[in-house]
Amino acid sequence: MGGDHAPSAVVEGSARALARSSDSLSIVLTGDEEAIRRELGRIGFSSPRLVIHPTTQIVQMTDRPSQVVATKPDSSLVAGIRLVKEGIADGFVSAGSTGAVLAASLMLLERIPGVKRPALGAYIPARPSGVMLCDVGANIDVKPDYLLQFAIMASEYMRRVYHVAEPRIGLLNVGSESTKGQKVYVETHELFAKYLPTFAGNIEARYVLDGKVDVVVCDGFVGNNLLKFAEGFVVHLAARIAEGVKRFGDFDPASQKMTSLLRNVMREFDYEEYGGVPLLGVNGVCMVSHGSSGPRAMENSILAAFEAVQSNLVPSIREDITASVRAVEEAT
Amino acid sequence: MGGDHAPSAVVEGSARALARSSDSLSIVLTGDEEAIRRELGRIGFSSPRLVIHPTTQIVQMTDRPSQVVATKPDSSLVAGIRLVKEGIADGFVSAGSTGAVLAASLMLLERIPGVKRPALGAYIPARPSGVMLCDVGANIDVKPDYLLQFAIMASEYMRRVYHVAEPRIGLLNVGSESTKGQKVYVETHELFAKYLPTFAGNIEARYVLDGKVDVVVCDGFVGNNLLKFAEGFVVHLAARIAEGVKRFGDFDPASQKMTSLLRNVMREFDYEEYGGVPLLGVNGVCMVSHGSSGPRAMENSILAAFEAVQSNLVPSIREDITASVRAVEEAT
Repeated sequence: MGGDHAPSAVVEGSARALARSSDSLSIVLTGDEEAIRRELGRIGFSSPRLVIHPTTQIVQMTDRPSQVVATKPDSSLVAGIRLVKEGIADGFVSAGSTGAVLAASLMLLERIPGVKRPALGAYIPARPSGVMLCDVGANIDVKPDYLLQFAIMASEYMRRVYHVAEPRIGLLNVGSESTKGQKVYVETHELFAKYLPTFAGNIEARYVLDGKVDVVVCDGFVGNNLLKFAEGFVVHLAARIAEGVKRFGDFDPASQKMTSLLRNVMREFDYEEYGGVPLLGVNGVCMVSHGSSGPRAMENSILAAFEAVQSNLVPSIREDITASVRAVEEAT
Repeated sequence: MGGDHAPSAVVEGSARALARSSDSLSIVLTGDEEAIRRELGRIGFSSPRLVIHPTTQIVQMTDRPSQVVATKPDSSLVAGIRLVKEGIADGFVSAGSTGAVLAASLMLLERIPGVKRPALGAYIPARPSGVMLCDVGANIDVKPDYLLQFAIMASEYMRRVYHVAEPRIGLLNVGSESTKGQKVYVETHELFAKYLPTFAGNIEARYVLDGKVDVVVCDGFVGNNLLKFAEGFVVHLAARIAEGVKRFGDFDPASQKMTSLLRNVMREFDYEEYGGVPLLGVNGVCMVSHGSSGPRAMENSILAAFEAVQSNLVPSIREDITASVRAVEEAT
């Protein structure tokens, strides 16, 4: 029931994901049963792999995130996370309030042992190869050891879900020298150099999309601003180009060609394509989709969550974090 | 002698600026006299309003910024700033090392009385109206009172150089609520609300280009990352689109139309269009251009510096800062 287009985008996205995936994917939809059935009727979809878990409450954007587990226990959001906690579901996907998903996941799924702070990683499907930016908003204030774990968790995500064998890690910074940036970044550079064999050094924001690294680590304040700026940028740019193409006239073949070209290019930067951002570091797969997600974004979020489950993302992160905690202890 | 295309871009940009401006603009080119004369010959330009001030040294990117005043006193960079200090020139424009321009300006021109930290403001010429992002890299670590001054100085720049009567000010943040963001941002929000009548509240990065505010204030770490990310983004996007257009074939009228449309749209985000970023808060107009600036970027930097001089930017900032310091003192 979360997101601007609930429940239709969620229901239609689920149907699409089921159609595109193997038999091993099943989906439990938590929410208003009648509304869900209506949507299923509208798109003419039914499947034994789609189950409804009826709930009665809805988390609103005005609800305080830290309160929803207590005040909205029978919301689609809290009930869904609880299904993961109880082992009935393997992963959770939501287009609802990011803050509420974060708070409820932390409370119900809890942190993976050793994880200091869970983080949100945004996958940007830019060519030549996609890149994960982490953190993009879960942690406004960070410490070097948090950032070290963000690097480890995001790398594991790239390895599992995008099959990058040895993800190269960059530390977002204003220059390549190890002495650049805020104090926490200088200390983090040192830590990364010591503990991350695939650390490729600082990376300036202008090279983030160039495919030089697979993971870019930063604090959630910078990461969130970067991601949102890019989002605004794409909207802005697309509007300007569309405006110009429109002036060509509808029947100009140039208009048609360009519209389709632009659609393809913009797709690289469109959250619809990648769908959700994983919350890394909790005991369960948890995917937060953009509030304005349409069916395609929901489909992609669900499939990414499915891939994360199938590839053992959470157990792998658990092992990595344990190993990292041990390595740091041994060195100090 | 600074920048990737020195001295040709600087010489040609100067010639263009002189051709486009009124008689009241004169330019002193500091640098290797022979090289400058060669460039002037190449473009066939001469004017009594263009004077050469010969220098023998060149600041390299490897020179330590804090040392250049001492080690490269006869460089084009240091000599140029000295001309401003001595009152021979009214403003300085350079495509050389940003760090060196910053350090030398601070040392030679010194801060305007009351200014805690000079800042770099980047003007982004996005529609519906341009916006200035400040700071974009001079101050990696900030305090609320620095940010208050960045807001004041950037507003004055928008007022003087872009004729915005009452610049609206936004504080870059991850949400609109006053409690959002790193501690320094929460405190800054309070300070802005108290002392800036045109403060429009926090602004999320996705709305920076929407024309809601004329000035966006942030720390230099975030600002620098944002600006560079946008830069990389434009390059990336333009390359993808050009690639697609190329596949249409050169003789397709769609290619030609689109190439010109794209050129127009990209111009909005192209630093070539706005040229340089002003260093605000020193006793003199000082404009830092992108290292890869071509003639057009240099021309625009020079014209912006000229506008800043003619519109009394520095005296206005001096007054504003004095008034602000007094207001803060009276309130505490």
